[in-house]
Amino acid sequence: MAASHVADPSLADSGAARIEWADGQMPVLRSIRERFDAERPLDGVRVAACLHVTAETANLVRALMAGGAQAALCAANPLSTQDDTAAALVERYGAEVHAVRGEDTDAYVANVTALVAGDPQVTIDDGADLITVLHEIGPARPERAEALIGALEETTTGLIRVRSLEADGRLACPVFAVNEALTERAFNDRYGTGQSTLDGILRATNLLLAGHTLVVFGYGWTGRGVAIRARGAGASVIVCEVDPLAALEARMEGFEVMPALAAAERGDVFVTVTGARDVLTREHFERMKDGAVLANAGHFDVEIAVADLRELAVGGVREVRPLVEQFDVGGRRLNLLARGRVVNLAAAEGHPAAVMDMSFALQALCVEELVARGADLTPAVHPVPAHIDREVAALKLAALGVEIDTLTAEQAVYRQSWQ
Amino acid sequence: MAASHVADPSLADSGAARIEWADGQMPVLRSIRERFDAERPLDGVRVAACLHVTAETANLVRALMAGGAQAALCAANPLSTQDDTAAALVERYGAEVHAVRGEDTDAYVANVTALVAGDPQVTIDDGADLITVLHEIGPARPERAEALIGALEETTTGLIRVRSLEADGRLACPVFAVNEALTERAFNDRYGTGQSTLDGILRATNLLLAGHTLVVFGYGWTGRGVAIRARGAGASVIVCEVDPLAALEARMEGFEVMPALAAAERGDVFVTVTGARDVLTREHFERMKDGAVLANAGHFDVEIAVADLRELAVGGVREVRPLVEQFDVGGRRLNLLARGRVVNLAAAEGHPAAVMDMSFALQALCVEELVARGADLTPAVHPVPAHIDREVAALKLAALGVEIDTLTAEQAVYRQSWQ
Amino acid sequence: MAASHVADPSLADSGAARIEWADGQMPVLRSIRERFDAERPLDGVRVAACLHVTAETANLVRALMAGGAQAALCAANPLSTQDDTAAALVERYGAEVHAVRGEDTDAYVANVTALVAGDPQVTIDDGADLITVLHEIGPARPERAEALIGALEETTTGLIRVRSLEADGRLACPVFAVNEALTERAFNDRYGTGQSTLDGILRATNLLLAGHTLVVFGYGWTGRGVAIRARGAGASVIVCEVDPLAALEARMEGFEVMPALAAAERGDVFVTVTGARDVLTREHFERMKDGAVLANAGHFDVEIAVADLRELAVGGVREVRPLVEQFDVGGRRLNLLARGRVVNLAAAEGHPAAVMDMSFALQALCVEELVARGADLTPAVHPVPAHIDREVAALKLAALGVEIDTLTAEQAVYRQSWQ
Amino acid sequence: MAASHVADPSLADSGAARIEWADGQMPVLRSIRERFDAERPLDGVRVAACLHVTAETANLVRALMAGGAQAALCAANPLSTQDDTAAALVERYGAEVHAVRGEDTDAYVANVTALVAGDPQVTIDDGADLITVLHEIGPARPERAEALIGALEETTTGLIRVRSLEADGRLACPVFAVNEALTERAFNDRYGTGQSTLDGILRATNLLLAGHTLVVFGYGWTGRGVAIRARGAGASVIVCEVDPLAALEARMEGFEVMPALAAAERGDVFVTVTGARDVLTREHFERMKDGAVLANAGHFDVEIAVADLRELAVGGVREVRPLVEQFDVGGRRLNLLARGRVVNLAAAEGHPAAVMDMSFALQALCVEELVARGADLTPAVHPVPAHIDREVAALKLAALGVEIDTLTAEQAVYRQSWQ
Repeated sequence: MAASHVADPSLADSGAARIEWADGQMPVLRSIRERFDAERPLDGVRVAACLHVTAETANLVRALMAGGAQAALCAANPLSTQDDTAAALVERYGAEVHAVRGEDTDAYVANVTALVAGDPQVTIDDGADLITVLHEIGPARPERAEALIGALEETTTGLIRVRSLEADGRLACPVFAVNEALTERAFNDRYGTGQSTLDGILRATNLLLAGHTLVVFGYGWTGRGVAIRARGAGASVIVCEVDPLAALEARMEGFEVMPALAAAERGDVFVTVTGARDVLTREHFERMKDGAVLANAGHFDVEIAVADLRELAVGGVREVRPLVEQFDVGGRRLNLLARGRVVNLAAAEGHPAAVMDMSFALQALCVEELVARGADLTPAVHPVPAHIDREVAALKLAALGVEIDTLTAEQAVYRQSWQ
Repeated sequence: MAASHVADPSLADSGAARIEWADGQMPVLRSIRERFDAERPLDGVRVAACLHVTAETANLVRALMAGGAQAALCAANPLSTQDDTAAALVERYGAEVHAVRGEDTDAYVANVTALVAGDPQVTIDDGADLITVLHEIGPARPERAEALIGALEETTTGLIRVRSLEADGRLACPVFAVNEALTERAFNDRYGTGQSTLDGILRATNLLLAGHTLVVFGYGWTGRGVAIRARGAGASVIVCEVDPLAALEARMEGFEVMPALAAAERGDVFVTVTGARDVLTREHFERMKDGAVLANAGHFDVEIAVADLRELAVGGVREVRPLVEQFDVGGRRLNLLARGRVVNLAAAEGHPAAVMDMSFALQALCVEELVARGADLTPAVHPVPAHIDREVAALKLAALGVEIDTLTAEQAVYRQSWQ
Repeated sequence: MAASHVADPSLADSGAARIEWADGQMPVLRSIRERFDAERPLDGVRVAACLHVTAETANLVRALMAGGAQAALCAANPLSTQDDTAAALVERYGAEVHAVRGEDTDAYVANVTALVAGDPQVTIDDGADLITVLHEIGPARPERAEALIGALEETTTGLIRVRSLEADGRLACPVFAVNEALTERAFNDRYGTGQSTLDGILRATNLLLAGHTLVVFGYGWTGRGVAIRARGAGASVIVCEVDPLAALEARMEGFEVMPALAAAERGDVFVTVTGARDVLTREHFERMKDGAVLANAGHFDVEIAVADLRELAVGGVREVRPLVEQFDVGGRRLNLLARGRVVNLAAAEGHPAAVMDMSFALQALCVEELVARGADLTPAVHPVPAHIDREVAALKLAALGVEIDTLTAEQAVYRQSWQ
Repeated sequence: MAASHVADPSLADSGAARIEWADGQMPVLRSIRERFDAERPLDGVRVAACLHVTAETANLVRALMAGGAQAALCAANPLSTQDDTAAALVERYGAEVHAVRGEDTDAYVANVTALVAGDPQVTIDDGADLITVLHEIGPARPERAEALIGALEETTTGLIRVRSLEADGRLACPVFAVNEALTERAFNDRYGTGQSTLDGILRATNLLLAGHTLVVFGYGWTGRGVAIRARGAGASVIVCEVDPLAALEARMEGFEVMPALAAAERGDVFVTVTGARDVLTREHFERMKDGAVLANAGHFDVEIAVADLRELAVGGVREVRPLVEQFDVGGRRLNLLARGRVVNLAAAEGHPAAVMDMSFALQALCVEELVARGADLTPAVHPVPAHIDREVAALKLAALGVEIDTLTAEQAVYRQSWQ
């Protein structure tokens, strides 16, 4: 194991407290750690992870190590690194960590390189940096590629990079597309982002949703999460969507559905979450009411055309509350939240711990799967196996104290007979 | 075209009025008929359908004929045949019909045989009778199999028969699994059966849902439809489910989730919709409260173990309202609806016309697809193409007066670039 | 006790079964009957009731008699009389009954007169006939007025008559305004009529509410019941209301609120429940979409201006389903339910038994209150005492199996100290 | 006008910007200000207000001054004073202000005394200090009592003091009980506090409500606001209530209702809002699950027995997040928010501006009412007149862009005829 690189080892106490608190919010991952501790399914396996270095991630590392893994961690984004968490991981839990809050790009590259130098057998990525670097510098060390059992990737953009490798015939190992798992999409996007998006809007504005009209652009998992929660908060909800199936579903759920230009005149709050760019542009801004609030819940800050807004702001722009910029577009005032960046992260705390719990539980089980059965998988991007989704759901139910039945033998036979 | 066989041609006036009223409720199918009339995509194609002979089905036949098809229809179930509808189809619309209400099995077989004798190029089944008979007697007339372009099947049990043919290597043409289409599952099961199940329960009992606890067994599409509607009617809703993913989703939607035996003690109304057998048995009945109501919304009447109930009824059984049998199980009275048969059909009117509209629109478009592209399909069971699902949704939106946007060219490129 | 007047005493068996079934649905009234049976609070009191002679009413009579009352019953409306129930009341339960289904007005008057001749001490009215006749013919028998302890009235129109007597200084006894009690308004109007109104619409039309827009006129207790249930059934709901407080409350609950003419263009289903007349008139009909459904849930059939509709129907009027008249107003077809009469009674079964249970429980306790404390009340219309509302609620909770806490002595003192 | 007493007049620019932003959120009050400006209904009237010196209050002062009033303001609580707002009120708007953030009690008394010295004709209180002092020192200046037209009080505790004066026969003027107005209770408590209570819980904990069980103690206006919003956020909601009518209503809305001890075992989050003391005590804490969260939404911090919690915390107490104290009660960890103080103020921002808008609009109209008709009112506590509630609602609808109809003359006559 290489030497760690953290800001201040003496912060370990503070970091340990923080990790413990997070652990209290992560019962699913904790139950996996306890089983791993007993079964040691990752015994001696070298796992490298490039993730946000936070207390929640620390508990993933703890679970992997409980399973017997040699875990090394670097920061996917130096700005989110918690130095005390990093210190505790090294000092208390014996992990290898390369992360200092606020480091520059050179340091970032050095950290990734350090992890790759350890010849990891399994990689865990948030943006595909580890797996890409491994492939790029791999040829210099063929034994490195041989060591590789498999990888995990949890972002859409990371998967584009990995699939590009696959398309070029260069992908050397199986990769699980973690963020495409059902528990990720159906639960985390809908319930996690649904709640935290509204939370971000309320923290930024303190407005009252009841009585107001909220327009959601995009009725995918996150969009429907936002729509359901906004209705639950007393808002009238309008959905704008380009896919007729999704649009019809929104309508059947009782939401109003209409074109964006019509909605622009009706809304008090606008939330974009389409994955497309330029969803709200000049022609929409020109129709909006005085006082309208604009927020983006999509991954990238391209959904609201901020440049258009700036051009229209003949009366100036000023920050009227933290994270609220007010554009005076000739008598009407439009309020942009968090400069159009993803509002649940920028104005609230992003995913609740309960959501990270399920995500990291999924990742821990995917590592176990790769170690147990990775050799049977082709070098390609694979969906997370259904049994893992199901196991995460079952563990989550247990954590919530919910019991369910199983089919009797007779019922299983009967069901089989006609399906 | 062979001679038709209907009860009384003089009923045509009455039947025509009935068909017109249904047409008023079926705007999606009507818009397809109007397009078919202009484009004639089925010109000269022989289509045979074995379906319930009702006014809604008549409008499917009208649409096919508007598209140029030579349509022949026989009854999938003689008990549901509307003799006036049959008469009108023959006298007014020029279809070939073989259906008389209440006919016996011999007549039924004769009707199916008559249709097969017409060497249909496309078959539409509700239980796979036409397609099976075609295959069984096909060898005697090889040209018959050659004529066959493809088939539709809309029931689960029918698909089992077709897939059995496929497994034996005997299937001679492509078959669309209509009931597995997304618009069928997501819309008809959830919204159609969800509403009509509660409707059936209310018509049978006139009980007040608000304040009471309703237990749903099974959280598939229909189960969640029942659960949502029951909550919408003011009931407390408990979900019992054996699949952890579905169970967790129910829980995240705010429903209580628990094992069936625990729910048995809590519920006032019980609805089974699992597809499994013996969901409610003696051990559940023994725990239920006095006055509990039992209804089944699954396809078959095997979900509630009526025999167990009968054994327990030491105090006798009596019909206390039409379709409500009361079992006195020693002081407590349990009320079984419609003898455990599917309650939305037995105690209400089954699917609302708006649901049949989408189902038959889907079938009309599937026939068009087979005629246009069936030659490219392997002889196997195929899912309904996504573009058809989408077209039905788009037509339904139009019928509801809902407009939506489309992606701009730039947005389409952007979206493509990262997906 | 005078001789009874019923259609056929031999129907008693059938009537008794019907009364027993209703009793199973009326646990609140049953618990009062059981207490009355033990305490005999009405011992020897002569109670006369002019109500619908149904199985639910029979259970009220049973409760009064269990309390010791001598009960006599006549029919408030001969069309609703159940002859078997009447027979059972006489033969099995020993009540005095004057009611034959379908009797003419003369017989009706004779029945009321017969009850008045018995010098009742407490009257129960549904339209104020008993109490009015008692006052009108009272002067001929002064001892009759002296015997009178008090009266109950359960309709708005009946109360107008009673208040007119009061305004003239002629009212001789206290009268409880039963239908103005909180449990009546908040529970029966909102939950009972809310559910049964939608039930009536679905039975008449079998339409699918999800995806459609329902417009409610009037946001009183019943109006909000309809609005909540319609939303719960998946409809988009628009509220039209003239009172700004109620309108604002509707808006804060997430409903769209707009003027009636604007709503006329948006709705698929229209429900009037305002208590006003001419809510929907020519100018509204002229804006409605083809296929619109019109239903009234208000007491009187004056809310939808049917005459206007008839004038507009240049294309004719025809009954397209039972209770559905279709008016062809020049290409567009408007569907009127139940000729504009109250739809939950005309097209469904009116109040669920659970609602009648609370109403009649309230009446039984009001009779007890009059007997115990009527002498202290002025001859005027009085609200139902709050403790009775509360007792009905407590008994209903018990019937639902719901337990609640009470304040501790310390908490009661604390609360008192600042209220 | 006396000289003002503020911290730093040079802060006026900053204060003016803050007041303008708040004005943007307060369209109802703004519309009143505009009318007042035109009609000058308060011309020359001396109004003294003892309120929180915030930007929202500043807009009330602006409205009063627009109406012609001479307005003087002091701080009801020095800790909430915004020094820049105070400066702007004096420098920009010409008000008399006595308020410096963080002043001690002596200064507080001096400020109140200064306002009283101005012989106000109308007082506006948040705790009854102005009106009480006026009465206590009034006898020294009889002309002072003569000048007094009337007063407003907006807190429950303030009203206790005023009613005590009234009971002693010493109250010299009419007082409007502002916080008992319907718009205050139905709107601000239900929608304002309902939303902000959950907002406070989420900001303090970042937990995910979906999938969890939230227990609300008390089903008054605020309690039902919390319950509705929690359900809207995906939580299962349990209601504990001692009043059977409220408990039954909760049950009919589909909430589970049970005794507090039973709920203690089921809940993940507990919210007290009863107005009673010691709602959650040792016996409840002993039954709660590990990780339970405790929050109070009632006015006083007596609903959760924090002392009991402290005694039970054998494993210690530590702050695990800001405003979250974790009590280790022997293996289980209970998390108390904001030390049991009202969570929407302590952990979020209290009422949204839209709520303050309606409250202050009500107060502005009450001042106008006192000036116009106060002479006709007895010296007693009076409810806010219904027409003012209705006007606030109408102005709020207008601010939301919602139009409604009015009754026609014929409808008004008809309605009158039977009501």
